[in-house]
Amino acid sequence: MTDPTRLLPPLAQDSTARIVLLVIDGVGDLRTADQPRTPLEVADTPNLDRLAREGSCGRLTPVAPGITPGSGPGHLALFGHDPLAPEADIGRGVLEALGAGVEVGRGDVAARGNFATADGKGDLVDRRAGRISTEECRRLCAKLRDALPDLDGVDVTVAAGEGHRFVLVLRGDELSADLADTDPQELGVPPHEPRPLPSASDDERAVRAVEIVSRLIESFESALSDEPRANRVLLRGFSKLPDLPSLADLYGLRAGAFAGYPLYRGVARVCGMEIADCGKSFQEIVEAVSSRADDFDYLFLHVKRTDMAGEDGDLDAKVAAIEEVDGILPQLTSLLDPDEDVVAITADHSTPVPMAAHSWHPSPLVVRAPRAFVDPVERYDEVSVRSGHLGDLLSKDLMAILLAHAGRLKKFRA
Amino acid sequence: MTDPTRLLPPLAQDSTARIVLLVIDGVGDLRTADQPRTPLEVADTPNLDRLAREGSCGRLTPVAPGITPGSGPGHLALFGHDPLAPEADIGRGVLEALGAGVEVGRGDVAARGNFATADGKGDLVDRRAGRISTEECRRLCAKLRDALPDLDGVDVTVAAGEGHRFVLVLRGDELSADLADTDPQELGVPPHEPRPLPSASDDERAVRAVEIVSRLIESFESALSDEPRANRVLLRGFSKLPDLPSLADLYGLRAGAFAGYPLYRGVARVCGMEIADCGKSFQEIVEAVSSRADDFDYLFLHVKRTDMAGEDGDLDAKVAAIEEVDGILPQLTSLLDPDEDVVAITADHSTPVPMAAHSWHPSPLVVRAPRAFVDPVERYDEVSVRSGHLGDLLSKDLMAILLAHAGRLKKFRA
Repeated sequence: MTDPTRLLPPLAQDSTARIVLLVIDGVGDLRTADQPRTPLEVADTPNLDRLAREGSCGRLTPVAPGITPGSGPGHLALFGHDPLAPEADIGRGVLEALGAGVEVGRGDVAARGNFATADGKGDLVDRRAGRISTEECRRLCAKLRDALPDLDGVDVTVAAGEGHRFVLVLRGDELSADLADTDPQELGVPPHEPRPLPSASDDERAVRAVEIVSRLIESFESALSDEPRANRVLLRGFSKLPDLPSLADLYGLRAGAFAGYPLYRGVARVCGMEIADCGKSFQEIVEAVSSRADDFDYLFLHVKRTDMAGEDGDLDAKVAAIEEVDGILPQLTSLLDPDEDVVAITADHSTPVPMAAHSWHPSPLVVRAPRAFVDPVERYDEVSVRSGHLGDLLSKDLMAILLAHAGRLKKFRA
Repeated sequence: MTDPTRLLPPLAQDSTARIVLLVIDGVGDLRTADQPRTPLEVADTPNLDRLAREGSCGRLTPVAPGITPGSGPGHLALFGHDPLAPEADIGRGVLEALGAGVEVGRGDVAARGNFATADGKGDLVDRRAGRISTEECRRLCAKLRDALPDLDGVDVTVAAGEGHRFVLVLRGDELSADLADTDPQELGVPPHEPRPLPSASDDERAVRAVEIVSRLIESFESALSDEPRANRVLLRGFSKLPDLPSLADLYGLRAGAFAGYPLYRGVARVCGMEIADCGKSFQEIVEAVSSRADDFDYLFLHVKRTDMAGEDGDLDAKVAAIEEVDGILPQLTSLLDPDEDVVAITADHSTPVPMAAHSWHPSPLVVRAPRAFVDPVERYDEVSVRSGHLGDLLSKDLMAILLAHAGRLKKFRA
């Protein structure tokens, strides 16, 4: 399978054309017996449809047929990484931290935490501490922060998540993330002691990280000793940001991310994008783009509301979210040079209302650019784009399509 | 990714059905705002359309989505080689030689040459010798030929190219092409001395080639010492024909190439085809086929005029070139047995008029054969074939499709 990050960089060349990638998260949906028209078909979308008429349409399969992606691989593929490559695996700790809005820098070690309950002997009796409230979790995290020991220059971030969950990020030189989980995933036993993964048992940086985590847990549990339920912490998914080459290194692109939610900013940062200041709504995102449009060659815009409506199984909300995007879209396209720039609209995965979850169904794609084949597609929806010129592509191949339309790829051999 | 040269040969079996592959170079094009219909849509093509009605249609992506191929990889893929494979890389020297009409045999070493100007100290002041005329280049090449030293059995060909360019081909036993360029790609320094690539510094055949090239350059520069401008030669892209298995070895095919231009003859020769005598026009090509039709199982026909019109950005010329092919097509199909033979028409890449260059857009494909699915496509053009039975394929998969339709592939396993 072609790896775009190997095939494309030797062909990359400069161009003044900009690439705008608008991800309408989870926009693709289903026709079913109970939902005979998809949200894109129900919605009134004159501006999306105009792009469909002016450009090339197709569909993107995020990872492989039948595979439902998480948001990490869904976006990494759109940014031109093979989501099946081992190096494109964003660890659970990092993803949880990014999702909680915690900054994770290169070299930082992130882990997911649970508050848990142990009995007088120290054996676990509840791995979720009675599913405490998010508010309670915030109080406990503040307590942990107050109890932070001095760790020889290692900075520690503790951030509350939903319910019993929290996030731990360690920032310091020479720390490895090759640590085993302290969560034993069973009751009647104590938490595991921190220890390196078997493959890293001789790694000094792992030994140092184990020592730091051990001292942290000791301080945390001492601070929690008066808590009736949340008297233990369990840590899982120690990980670092994956070390992926940046879009600047690969293609010479000055890439900017305009995303209101931390997870998507995080994935964009993994790909070396600059994270632009912006709000969460599409209106705020487009305003942010309008003030920074000339700073970037590649602009990634992320709309979350469609995915949330899909996750809620709320057809009306998803239709309204789509119509909101459509209504604001002309403000975005007015920033572009139609004789030069490339605009692509698609999603990282589908989030069908009838499933109230991510799914494997392909996402509709439209690309408008001077070199785009103006195919006969007249509407931006799941069924119409099926007959478009771009056909069915894997998401990881979108980067080549965008670079090609922007005049940023030389001929392959002679 | 499936390599056809590994998957197919164990399945190959004999058949009396012939395969005719007509490459209408660069025939695919664009619909844009300024060019609302493609040349294939504008052209009157009753005979191409009849094949579309009688056969299966689809589209070929030459290398990968978004990748614009050179003619080498574009054709190698049509002939069933993975164009991304390192062994399918036809070196620049070989390609330049083939393009200039110079024969390159297996084992020959070819290089691209420039005439250049050096000052009294021997430092380069013009890498293109003032962009001398092609006529001047021919005079200088004759001078080089007169100055050829005795090289212990190594035959040397010097052939003029366009402007300041020429081609050098060395034919002799035991020569390696692992030589570094003598062109320093900068001014104010002398040309590099011939030397082996770092990876070949211990290779006796490379050392021998360096010695031959050094003696050649010495003779050449001595012969050029009275020239006011072209007093140096710079050599680049030392290479040999890639060592690819022949279509005879792979599939038992007696393969013949009917191509009027040297580059395409050269690529066909790389794949082990016999190069048939023929002219450049499609009429002459079809006449050549008619006299040799029974000598081959696989006939590759190459039409150049469409690509040239695309490169010129000339819609009318491209339409005329397509209509010329269409008008003569019945003479070709009349040579075939419709109850047995396979005819396929496609291109190595698109050359859209609005781009006046090769592009990545898929090429339309039609295959007519007794076992072809007669799909509903009624016209041979970019949009119509999109709904054909063959769907979207990579060019390298065409060979399997052609062999299958000719009854030349056994069942895979039991």
